[in-house]
Amino acid sequence: MTAPSPGYSITVRVSTPATFTATSDVTNAVASTGAQITAVDVVESSHAGMTVDVSCNIRDRAHGDEIRATVDALEGATVGNISDRTFLMHLGGKLESKPKVPLRNRDDLSRAYTPGVARVCQAIAKNKADARNLTIKRNTVAVVTDGSAVLGLGDIGPEAAMPVMEGKAVLFKQFAGVDAWPVALDTNDTEKIIDICKAIAPAYGGINLEDISAPRCFEIESRLREELDIPVFHDDQHGTAIVTQAALINALKVVNKNIGDVRIVVSGVGAAGTAIIKLLIASGATNILAAGRNGVIEHGSNHDDEHRRWLASHTNQENFKGSLKEAVAGADVFIGVSAPDLLDEDDMKNMNSDAIVFAMSNPDPEINPEVAARNAAVVATGRSDYPNQINNVLAFPGFFRGLLDAHSHNITDQMLVAAAEAIASCVSADELNPSYIIPSVFDAEVSTRVADAIVETAQQDT
Amino acid sequence: MTAPSPGYSITVRVSTPATFTATSDVTNAVASTGAQITAVDVVESSHAGMTVDVSCNIRDRAHGDEIRATVDALEGATVGNISDRTFLMHLGGKLESKPKVPLRNRDDLSRAYTPGVARVCQAIAKNKADARNLTIKRNTVAVVTDGSAVLGLGDIGPEAAMPVMEGKAVLFKQFAGVDAWPVALDTNDTEKIIDICKAIAPAYGGINLEDISAPRCFEIESRLREELDIPVFHDDQHGTAIVTQAALINALKVVNKNIGDVRIVVSGVGAAGTAIIKLLIASGATNILAAGRNGVIEHGSNHDDEHRRWLASHTNQENFKGSLKEAVAGADVFIGVSAPDLLDEDDMKNMNSDAIVFAMSNPDPEINPEVAARNAAVVATGRSDYPNQINNVLAFPGFFRGLLDAHSHNITDQMLVAAAEAIASCVSADELNPSYIIPSVFDAEVSTRVADAIVETAQQDT
Repeated sequence: MTAPSPGYSITVRVSTPATFTATSDVTNAVASTGAQITAVDVVESSHAGMTVDVSCNIRDRAHGDEIRATVDALEGATVGNISDRTFLMHLGGKLESKPKVPLRNRDDLSRAYTPGVARVCQAIAKNKADARNLTIKRNTVAVVTDGSAVLGLGDIGPEAAMPVMEGKAVLFKQFAGVDAWPVALDTNDTEKIIDICKAIAPAYGGINLEDISAPRCFEIESRLREELDIPVFHDDQHGTAIVTQAALINALKVVNKNIGDVRIVVSGVGAAGTAIIKLLIASGATNILAAGRNGVIEHGSNHDDEHRRWLASHTNQENFKGSLKEAVAGADVFIGVSAPDLLDEDDMKNMNSDAIVFAMSNPDPEINPEVAARNAAVVATGRSDYPNQINNVLAFPGFFRGLLDAHSHNITDQMLVAAAEAIASCVSADELNPSYIIPSVFDAEVSTRVADAIVETAQQDT
Repeated sequence: MTAPSPGYSITVRVSTPATFTATSDVTNAVASTGAQITAVDVVESSHAGMTVDVSCNIRDRAHGDEIRATVDALEGATVGNISDRTFLMHLGGKLESKPKVPLRNRDDLSRAYTPGVARVCQAIAKNKADARNLTIKRNTVAVVTDGSAVLGLGDIGPEAAMPVMEGKAVLFKQFAGVDAWPVALDTNDTEKIIDICKAIAPAYGGINLEDISAPRCFEIESRLREELDIPVFHDDQHGTAIVTQAALINALKVVNKNIGDVRIVVSGVGAAGTAIIKLLIASGATNILAAGRNGVIEHGSNHDDEHRRWLASHTNQENFKGSLKEAVAGADVFIGVSAPDLLDEDDMKNMNSDAIVFAMSNPDPEINPEVAARNAAVVATGRSDYPNQINNVLAFPGFFRGLLDAHSHNITDQMLVAAAEAIASCVSADELNPSYIIPSVFDAEVSTRVADAIVETAQQDT
């Protein structure tokens, strides 16, 4: 059974008799279902009765029904409205467009709009590069999706993807002061998505591709990188790769192994897995096995799609043939971005000593993290309820902050490596331990260090 | 010579000796060039000398050079930096994306983003209409342009159009609380623009087309109205038409004539002129002559483009043949959205008694407004330095406020008529006079009344 989550937080309004124990009776009833109580407020009280709001974290909808039934069964108590705090937070969306300039009077108006604005337009028409100084292009990123591969939900379409894209934009602003705007496209056509990104680019200093399914995401990203003069970053690939690499840097320190020596098995050869492997190689890894649904990709094998061909020629130099489980035997590092419950405790036992296990399938990892932790030296997941959460939020805000500040036109492998090192550096030698290889997403230092690393790398490039 | 404008406002930094008259000498020198002084600040002062900032409105760049030369010629004074306040206001753009929800801790994060957000996504995937409640679609409008017909500047491209689109978004928010976002497209292809608007529509509750050249703007708007389920409004057409019609309603009250009786000559048959004529007809006008570059469009004449054919069949019922000047003779109302200096004082004298003249070519009207005012009963222009400015800002914010509040899927002629009447109603019988037929853009009542009128009309439709 899943645990109650603050992501499913409700407020239960209850009418009770005005007795001394009414509030505690209701609270106890709610708690008895396994809900985590976060607040109890008496909304109204009279001789006739009281209205009490009990806020709590629950597991799921059925748990909410159970609470209603349990409280309704109390003598004199009636449950009224149950409001869902997550939905309340989303009413009207999570983002607004806000003027940075005041329009108090006609003088303001004549500077921000006609007639004064005409001179600003003419300056940009004369020198397009001025758009980076005189428009929102300076600080603004498009968060582009087609809603085809959203979270664990799959192809839910652009409308339903919007809450995630808005959330992403909120994170951009919150963690790195980047203005981001959701662009949720009602098309899955690769060429159309490329065309649209090119067409909307004048307003933006960068494009963050998000939740676009493989293999289209590869084509879309690589074509846009060729054809646009602003940086294009597919977060599901590079964001995940950067944070995974950051975690690996510190995990290797914990077990005192070198990246060039370890045998690494990556489970999942989609967008994330491929990007992780590319960054592992750029960071010095030499012994990598990539496992898809049909087992480990053989060295030099032929494939229909370009990214699998790339994997076949860049991994598995030892020419290993076999299943994921066979590959994991004797491996130093397991990195999973694939599917739930692919491995078991025996597999963990078969790994090399001081093993590192990143089981990032979400919400259900490739191996039960508690089982993994009994055998491996370091365990990380994508979940916030275990230590060592691999969370993209550590990478993308600072990464784009750096790109915008450097007026960067493209993204290099060196930048990805530098970002991973910057994140890893936020865990000091004193702090580093098997349960703390990656900084908290609320560590304000992270995005600053990542941004600085990107700016520095960009300057070395030019 | 044009007058100094707050749209061209500079701050001149001057080093002077520390004498009793230094500041007034500098200020007098600046004023002697015809600049309007708006502020004088002593930035630094010591026995050795002073640094003074003189802020003023000027005419143009040459005027700035003249100020520099004039002040430099003063004994001991040296002009340092001259900063342009309009450009300073535009640094980094005029708009930001701002979170409406706090992310203070992990509980907030798990509601605004994963895992909580997944439930909101699923709700929308199940019922797309929920996007209007649970995403920014509720309150957000796209301001779409290709930069092909910007202000009086013409085809300056999407980058250079951005300051206008950002300004528009600022006005939307300021005057009606509508979140608007600029979409400046790097393509002039009609089909591509249509395709892109359709693709980006999931995030928006409406589309405001802006500064797209005719005749493409007609095709783009009409196709989008057919193919999208959110309202599409080309401001250069309907915004202008609404405010013109509002001004005409009040001007006709001033001269005590009825719209059904007056002879109206419209100069300009582009986007604005055509929309104005359509709204005149919807408002009860029967006697309209439409004049293009080749004179008045003859009734029933054939034309290549659809909108001219429409004009030929809906105007000039009397089958008048002749030039604009010939048409104006005996007319009650002249409405110009065309080109500077097409008419002269004789034309004004030839109009009917109690003539109404709206000369809206900008910045140089069809007839010098001062000359017009010597002969006509009511004169309006597009300029802010004469009375009766016909300004779209009076229409589009409240119009979209109403559309969003009514969850409107389309725009009807009745809405345009209602919006014009709502704007006209903001000038009370007590206030109405030949120099005040249209409310100030800073009249907060205007957008509220327009929005209410749209909501009411939308409800009657359904």
